[in-house]
Amino acid sequence: MSDTAARWTLHPDRALPADPVTRGLARQVLEATRDLPIVSMHGHVDAGVLARDEPFGDPASLLVVPDHYLVRMLVSQGVPHDALGVPRRDGQPVETDPRAIWRTFAAHWHLFRGTPTRFWLEHQLVEVLGVTQKLSAETADAAYDTIAERLADPAFRPLALLDGLGIEIIATTDAATATLADHADLAARGWGERVVPTFRPDALLHVDRPGWRDDVALLGERAGVEIGSYGDYVRALEARRWAFVEAGARATDHGHLRADTTPLDPADAQAVFAAALRGEVTAGEAQAFSAHMLFEMARMSTQDGLVMQLHPGALRDHDPRVALERGPDVGYDIPVATEYVRSLAPLLEAFGHHPDLRLILFTLDEDTFSRELAPLAGVYPAVRLGAPWWFLDSPDGMRRYREAVTDTAGFYNTTGFVDDTRAFLSIPARHDLARRIDAGYLARLVAEHRLDLDEAVQTAVDLAYRLPRAAYPPVAASVFPSSSDPAAAPQEVHP
Amino acid sequence: MSDTAARWTLHPDRALPADPVTRGLARQVLEATRDLPIVSMHGHVDAGVLARDEPFGDPASLLVVPDHYLVRMLVSQGVPHDALGVPRRDGQPVETDPRAIWRTFAAHWHLFRGTPTRFWLEHQLVEVLGVTQKLSAETADAAYDTIAERLADPAFRPLALLDGLGIEIIATTDAATATLADHADLAARGWGERVVPTFRPDALLHVDRPGWRDDVALLGERAGVEIGSYGDYVRALEARRWAFVEAGARATDHGHLRADTTPLDPADAQAVFAAALRGEVTAGEAQAFSAHMLFEMARMSTQDGLVMQLHPGALRDHDPRVALERGPDVGYDIPVATEYVRSLAPLLEAFGHHPDLRLILFTLDEDTFSRELAPLAGVYPAVRLGAPWWFLDSPDGMRRYREAVTDTAGFYNTTGFVDDTRAFLSIPARHDLARRIDAGYLARLVAEHRLDLDEAVQTAVDLAYRLPRAAYPPVAASVFPSSSDPAAAPQEVHP
Amino acid sequence: MSDTAARWTLHPDRALPADPVTRGLARQVLEATRDLPIVSMHGHVDAGVLARDEPFGDPASLLVVPDHYLVRMLVSQGVPHDALGVPRRDGQPVETDPRAIWRTFAAHWHLFRGTPTRFWLEHQLVEVLGVTQKLSAETADAAYDTIAERLADPAFRPLALLDGLGIEIIATTDAATATLADHADLAARGWGERVVPTFRPDALLHVDRPGWRDDVALLGERAGVEIGSYGDYVRALEARRWAFVEAGARATDHGHLRADTTPLDPADAQAVFAAALRGEVTAGEAQAFSAHMLFEMARMSTQDGLVMQLHPGALRDHDPRVALERGPDVGYDIPVATEYVRSLAPLLEAFGHHPDLRLILFTLDEDTFSRELAPLAGVYPAVRLGAPWWFLDSPDGMRRYREAVTDTAGFYNTTGFVDDTRAFLSIPARHDLARRIDAGYLARLVAEHRLDLDEAVQTAVDLAYRLPRAAYPPVAASVFPSSSDPAAAPQEVHP
Repeated sequence: MSDTAARWTLHPDRALPADPVTRGLARQVLEATRDLPIVSMHGHVDAGVLARDEPFGDPASLLVVPDHYLVRMLVSQGVPHDALGVPRRDGQPVETDPRAIWRTFAAHWHLFRGTPTRFWLEHQLVEVLGVTQKLSAETADAAYDTIAERLADPAFRPLALLDGLGIEIIATTDAATATLADHADLAARGWGERVVPTFRPDALLHVDRPGWRDDVALLGERAGVEIGSYGDYVRALEARRWAFVEAGARATDHGHLRADTTPLDPADAQAVFAAALRGEVTAGEAQAFSAHMLFEMARMSTQDGLVMQLHPGALRDHDPRVALERGPDVGYDIPVATEYVRSLAPLLEAFGHHPDLRLILFTLDEDTFSRELAPLAGVYPAVRLGAPWWFLDSPDGMRRYREAVTDTAGFYNTTGFVDDTRAFLSIPARHDLARRIDAGYLARLVAEHRLDLDEAVQTAVDLAYRLPRAAYPPVAASVFPSSSDPAAAPQEVHP
Repeated sequence: MSDTAARWTLHPDRALPADPVTRGLARQVLEATRDLPIVSMHGHVDAGVLARDEPFGDPASLLVVPDHYLVRMLVSQGVPHDALGVPRRDGQPVETDPRAIWRTFAAHWHLFRGTPTRFWLEHQLVEVLGVTQKLSAETADAAYDTIAERLADPAFRPLALLDGLGIEIIATTDAATATLADHADLAARGWGERVVPTFRPDALLHVDRPGWRDDVALLGERAGVEIGSYGDYVRALEARRWAFVEAGARATDHGHLRADTTPLDPADAQAVFAAALRGEVTAGEAQAFSAHMLFEMARMSTQDGLVMQLHPGALRDHDPRVALERGPDVGYDIPVATEYVRSLAPLLEAFGHHPDLRLILFTLDEDTFSRELAPLAGVYPAVRLGAPWWFLDSPDGMRRYREAVTDTAGFYNTTGFVDDTRAFLSIPARHDLARRIDAGYLARLVAEHRLDLDEAVQTAVDLAYRLPRAAYPPVAASVFPSSSDPAAAPQEVHP
Repeated sequence: MSDTAARWTLHPDRALPADPVTRGLARQVLEATRDLPIVSMHGHVDAGVLARDEPFGDPASLLVVPDHYLVRMLVSQGVPHDALGVPRRDGQPVETDPRAIWRTFAAHWHLFRGTPTRFWLEHQLVEVLGVTQKLSAETADAAYDTIAERLADPAFRPLALLDGLGIEIIATTDAATATLADHADLAARGWGERVVPTFRPDALLHVDRPGWRDDVALLGERAGVEIGSYGDYVRALEARRWAFVEAGARATDHGHLRADTTPLDPADAQAVFAAALRGEVTAGEAQAFSAHMLFEMARMSTQDGLVMQLHPGALRDHDPRVALERGPDVGYDIPVATEYVRSLAPLLEAFGHHPDLRLILFTLDEDTFSRELAPLAGVYPAVRLGAPWWFLDSPDGMRRYREAVTDTAGFYNTTGFVDDTRAFLSIPARHDLARRIDAGYLARLVAEHRLDLDEAVQTAVDLAYRLPRAAYPPVAASVFPSSSDPAAAPQEVHP
């Protein structure tokens, strides 16, 4: 059994290759990225948490309840959502004692063996929160107390943690209808360069969603446009994008089921929109319209300079009863096979060589790494490959990604590491793991005499820092020629 | 050339990772599983072979003729089925001299380089059968004689081999219309706990199969039900499932082309069934009906407690002329891309959280490991992932499986190793190989400081023994509350 | 920064596994293949280049402009086609100064880190062309001068290079309408055994292609057949195939989007052909006809003995504007998911056991390695798997191929290495890399005690030399019984 009395530490060589030759090289490569700041350009930390800057709550509500990776694993082994404090939409009672929730989690620690969730949690518990004994049913209370004490420390308030965790810049994800008041508040207090919004219009682009008409009304209100037609709707979206640009946004984000970007004829787009306003749209029309709007988003990006991020392929709320009971994001989003080549053809034919478009592609379908995504990124100047996403953001997932895409896309058509989490304290863990895996991959190239060590070191720095900075440039740099930050402008990264 | 004079031995480190650091750890992990009994919960050994308990025949009819892995490899290189003694359905002569067949096989030994078939055969020949010289055209006769002599030993009669091979329990696969007489016979002789049937109703669920009506008539006879309607048919199936439960069955097994589980309206199910009885069913109706019946099988499992195994994705009898000439299972079953997420949605919405359903998923399409299967098993309490199956039951296939599914499903949403063979003597080889690959994978996690050694050892024991036992519990434990075997009841496996 | 002063050399262990144990074994395996001649049975070197035997031009027009791997990588990072000298179809000016093009390429050398293109280029620059300093913007001119000087050496004329590069035999790819005059010329000068044509009828089999009717007219002219009907067309194709056989061809090559081989009824084939002649064919009819013609090509192969190569799954000219501007083969061919099992069923049912058919399958969709291709090649005597192709012809791509197909197809249902390049000087680099990867894979099997070292050595020789020779036998051996070259006849390869 584990010696729970020994002090819990993280091994400095964790997640590096086992072979001693490669490990020695990987250590050297990793060392070069150790002190680089974190560039966190895609995530789901709530801007309000940062703006309010209040202390985090208890360990369970910080680390367990909102983490759908963690919740789904416990649920899969028979732990009820109620016992984990996941709220019901009908207001029926669920477990509210954070210590009880924490004990349930700790008692199932073995379930996370071999998972990235374990790696991230260990990093948070040991490195960030100072837990000193391996987690188990026996040590659950001690860990809870340690964490609770730490969270009361002013250094653990959200904005202080930006420095504490080494985060140079963090992007939030914000509905197209967001007021951006939190961002305005942060900017007024001098945090505008470090906390930036991201334009996420999904809710408005899927015209058969329940509540879509309310969202359109809210869009009109936010944009100061009376939306009676498709033309109004497009103008309102454009206006909101500019509002985001002015609030410091660098990117849009799109979570569609398919990557389809086939545009509609204007008359057809107008007709579908009108039908949707009347509540008479069909599922097929709505799907065609969402594809059309992806095309439109690319067009708008060529005008306002927002980087376009596409995250397709998650079938949301696989169990509709759970969705009804608990809402979204509780573990029931399941990937499906995703086609990119034909789907993106309309967009890329129109804008794939446009100097002002940057399209960053993500996937949950790793079959597309070598077959579709690397060949597309390996020829279209507008395309970059995002980091392995969600279910693939793991030691072996990241390794397979590099092994599959580098042949055709190289390193410089990827964005370097982009995290994707609502778990604020896990951001350093995710970047740390990515740097380790990239170091291991680069070290293997060196060990196999396919790359020189100095090149590997330089590439590791690019992947950890320079490429994410370059992939998400401040919009001003391209849109407002008077920008005073040329260093961060979209530019080629090279030695 | 190989030194055929040296004694043929198996290396103790075979199939362990090459890197010395990882190998040292893998040895320690493997050691913990060395003496564990074999739990063989899915296979195709004929219950009659065990019940009759007669000596096995000659080496060729035991090891060559019925092994479709082996036959297809020789056929692919131009050796005719006739030369391998694979019988023709028209009764035309084929090679019947077992020594001639054995020589043909031995002369092509090089074809199996790098294949799992070679690994399994070496284990059988050296460890089980005592062959002392590497196989080749030159040593074929000596090997033949050694094996033939060994097979005459009473210790090599089927039931004695259960002890000799270390098999604690073995499940056979039995048609839903089977009399189960062999199982009754075995139970009467005290083997009922060690040899259990499995309910396989495929032939009855595909209503456009030639011979389906005869099978339905036989089903009615076995179940004591006059089958004139869909309702009768369902009742007869339920009755047969209960008969299997009473005969000790723990599971059902389903070999459909697709994983579709969309239920039909009762009226539609009745109409398709009636059309099928009249011989007027269309292929589309039959396909829809088979999906409906998978849903029904899950429903029945929630009532009678039989574990549900789904093995989709094999397109059977790819060359219809060969099927006509030689029948099924001669190597022409070819995998096709298989969709699980949408296909299983109806079943999982209805029963995915049912406390009495256990659905074990297998695949021939490894693309679904990370994309579909691990995410489904990683959230639905009813779902477990079976072991890599058939074409994927190989050293690298099993490694890729762990690397792809552990991130999201962990170890404890898998069943541990489940073999799938009609080659009785190969069962220990298959479990030995699986334990070696799991030991290597776990050792890598330890070497990369992602897991502690004590955890790896414990997990290896779970994968080899405790998880398969837990995944296929005796039905009594859940259905009959008075069960006296709580240790084997479906329970969470953890330290 | 790289030490550009040090002499640029290739490490003898490049692309071998990093683990010292495995590397030591890999060196031994590789050593056995070091002096084997190169068998290059599929490529795109122009027969005219060999027949004219003129000195190669400047470094840029040899190594940069025609290499679509290289061009697309630079384009993907914003370098315009114009700057790379890729000609425009409208004759507008592009960069023509070879030194300027070369400098642009050299300045972007870092983009190729980790790619097979870099491996191949390094081999060519260092081993073949004698460049002594690592490539960079600073060393570009020196490298240019070194190469230019080397290209002026008579030993660097095309035919001399066949010896210089160790190429025993090279196949070109020739349109079905080619005069084969270059091949006749080469044969007259004694090169007929070393330079052979390949029959590529794609342009004629896709009846909705612009220019198809002109090509049919040319086909008729070449074949001496007035083509007024489908029957004439088939006869003309058969005649051309025989002309290729007489010119030494060993194979046909087929680049279809899909692998579909469903034959049409003769009346339907005639009707589609007639419609196409009238210019009235639909896209659907054209697609069905191309599938029909693949079936027909297999039938013809059973008669004339030409090996049939199928390269499906590349969606050509993804950006039609680039195709319009620059023509084909400039980097915009993108793979799509490809189905083989159902698609090839008609062909394999008809000819899969035919003793005179050899069908070699390639793919750009590695998902099909274990799921479809290995199972098909592992049972049908007519089928062999070609080498990893195009985007997959890389160190990790070749490793994944062996790891995925060997389980089911073994080594002897693969063809060994088949290159595919228009870059003449890169042929040795490609074979060298393949031999290294196969040596590494075989060495791992040895290190894991899954194969003996002598078997690994023998298999490496088979993969590098004997299997490609056997996979593409001279047609005479099977068609003309009087052939005097039985050693090269299609025969089983074994120890």
